Amino acid sequence: MWLTNRSSVLEMLKSIEWLGDRVRWINTLKIPWEEEVVESGDPERIAQAIERMEIRGAPAIGVAAALAVALVAVRSSAESLEELKSKLLATVERMKRTRPTAVNLYWALRRVESVIKGEYVSTRELREAVVREALSIYEEDIYVNRKMAEIGSKLLDDGDTVLTHCNAGALATVAYGTALGVIRAAWESGKRVKVIATETRPMLQGARLTVWELMKDGIPVKLITDNMVGYVMSRGLVSKVIVGADRVIPPGYVVNKIGTYTIAVLANRHRVPFYVAAPTSTIDYESKIEDIVIEERNPDEVRTVLSKFYVTLPNVEVLNPAFDITPPELVTAIITEKGLVTQPLEESLLRLRKQP
Amino acid sequence: MWLTNRSSVLEMLKSIEWLGDRVRWINTLKIPWEEEVVESGDPERIAQAIERMEIRGAPAIGVAAALAVALVAVRSSAESLEELKSKLLATVERMKRTRPTAVNLYWALRRVESVIKGEYVSTRELREAVVREALSIYEEDIYVNRKMAEIGSKLLDDGDTVLTHCNAGALATVAYGTALGVIRAAWESGKRVKVIATETRPMLQGARLTVWELMKDGIPVKLITDNMVGYVMSRGLVSKVIVGADRVIPPGYVVNKIGTYTIAVLANRHRVPFYVAAPTSTIDYESKIEDIVIEERNPDEVRTVLSKFYVTLPNVEVLNPAFDITPPELVTAIITEKGLVTQPLEESLLRLRKQP
Repeated sequence: MWLTNRSSVLEMLKSIEWLGDRVRWINTLKIPWEEEVVESGDPERIAQAIERMEIRGAPAIGVAAALAVALVAVRSSAESLEELKSKLLATVERMKRTRPTAVNLYWALRRVESVIKGEYVSTRELREAVVREALSIYEEDIYVNRKMAEIGSKLLDDGDTVLTHCNAGALATVAYGTALGVIRAAWESGKRVKVIATETRPMLQGARLTVWELMKDGIPVKLITDNMVGYVMSRGLVSKVIVGADRVIPPGYVVNKIGTYTIAVLANRHRVPFYVAAPTSTIDYESKIEDIVIEERNPDEVRTVLSKFYVTLPNVEVLNPAFDITPPELVTAIITEKGLVTQPLEESLLRLRKQP
Repeated sequence: MWLTNRSSVLEMLKSIEWLGDRVRWINTLKIPWEEEVVESGDPERIAQAIERMEIRGAPAIGVAAALAVALVAVRSSAESLEELKSKLLATVERMKRTRPTAVNLYWALRRVESVIKGEYVSTRELREAVVREALSIYEEDIYVNRKMAEIGSKLLDDGDTVLTHCNAGALATVAYGTALGVIRAAWESGKRVKVIATETRPMLQGARLTVWELMKDGIPVKLITDNMVGYVMSRGLVSKVIVGADRVIPPGYVVNKIGTYTIAVLANRHRVPFYVAAPTSTIDYESKIEDIVIEERNPDEVRTVLSKFYVTLPNVEVLNPAFDITPPELVTAIITEKGLVTQPLEESLLRLRKQP
């Protein structure tokens, strides 16, 4: 009900909810045709939901993975601390294997893992600590999106047309969204902004999810195919670009949905500001850019449209990288909940790290 | 039969054929699922085939339009020269309205029109002159593609991976193709070239037609979505780009399938040579770039995939420009049947114009 009959932009669309002993999520694969809500108490079911992209978007998969571990904390019949810890850690390991590129997944699981590895006097105490940590991650995601939105919305002007890619909205987070959160906040503050959404093949998150979210909120949106980005920029139809991120690596590489790099190159040529909305949990100070694994997904995602029918010969070879890398020099600024990361990004990212 | 059982790359795939009182064509909308051959003696049916994109590709629509006029020449019951001329000219006008951007259509129709407007002693003489002109246009297209291929193939080296967009192949011409003609000729001469084909939303000519043509010929091809171009270039996977053109305007603007400009910008950034294969009939010395009408097609092409199902909300606004414009500075060279047009393109195009 809360999903289908939203009456205002302020009523919050939640893509994931904690029900005490189950997790409830919107199956984003069914959007916009059907608003299917799934409930499960089984962490393996959540792992599969992440792998199949029922739950997707870097912040959302981090939260979902943490909640999957919390389900074990609530439901496991383990009687000894040792047994419970081992079951919890096995679930952490299982969740880590779901998708390799987004860093929020590891960040969330590391937080839960470090709680699991603490000292406890009873299984009950451990159970409660794990659930508490997972719920903190959940609630922080909502807070962080609101904070980013507040900071980022100052970058948008009345009359702007903002191009966004993929879906960095409520359906990629617990609620509100990163890139779409910024656009929503500008809209709610009375700025008349418009959006151009790229359809984002192969999984069409732009056409399916971003359009659906924005139309629900009454924010004007036009849909384009991915290869129209150069055209709309050359016609002066885009004032700003805002995208999300799956991982940010100093000195400022942005790993995000395939197609982001192409948009950044075009924005640079046309002097259109290119903003990335990313919570600090997306910043990976540990890895090197050359070590990042770009997930190569099932070739049938490209050969078909959403498994409905083949658009090409079924035996053609394909490439299907899920992400690409935008270098620091193409990024105007990164919007985080702690403030703007501006050029030179490297120094700004290091300052941010020291900030509480 | 000739279509489905091709035994060698040298056996020529013809997308359009003249049958004396009918025209036969491959319905490219059905490729790769079905190899449907359509025959009709009705010029209006051919006009619709062009509008619906059963017949598509700048050279192919020019030839098909000329053959549609030839059908009137063969089949009209007109008894006076005046009546016959008027019927022929009405068909010329009808064909001109099919699609606005590709210049080969107007070029072919102007040739036929000028023949119609000549002096004749009998309707028979006029009928024969029109058919002869249409068949010349038809045969020249095959010759011109072969010649471009011969010239362009020298630009390709053994081991090259060539990125191409949309379909500038046999299915965009009478036979052999422009961009794919160049690749075919390199392959036939023994160079081991590979192709990366962009799927080319919304109509998916790359996924459907280019992949189909290349796999029939045994030329290695990998399919990508349009938003992967930046990724493959950043990974050094592309040695050269070759695309076709719908219109070339001095000083060297290239009007071609939507997405071409984006690819050209990326090629420029990654220092990948960007070649355009275009017969001289594609060069428009008369128009100014600011006067070019970019065809805006039915929004449902973007909202759906090939009319099979909606990938978004059916009432979302969309942009659907069929073409974009690549400026001269991004074009390494244009391959024509009269030779290479090299930088500075403007001078080179003017020299070409004076050449017989």
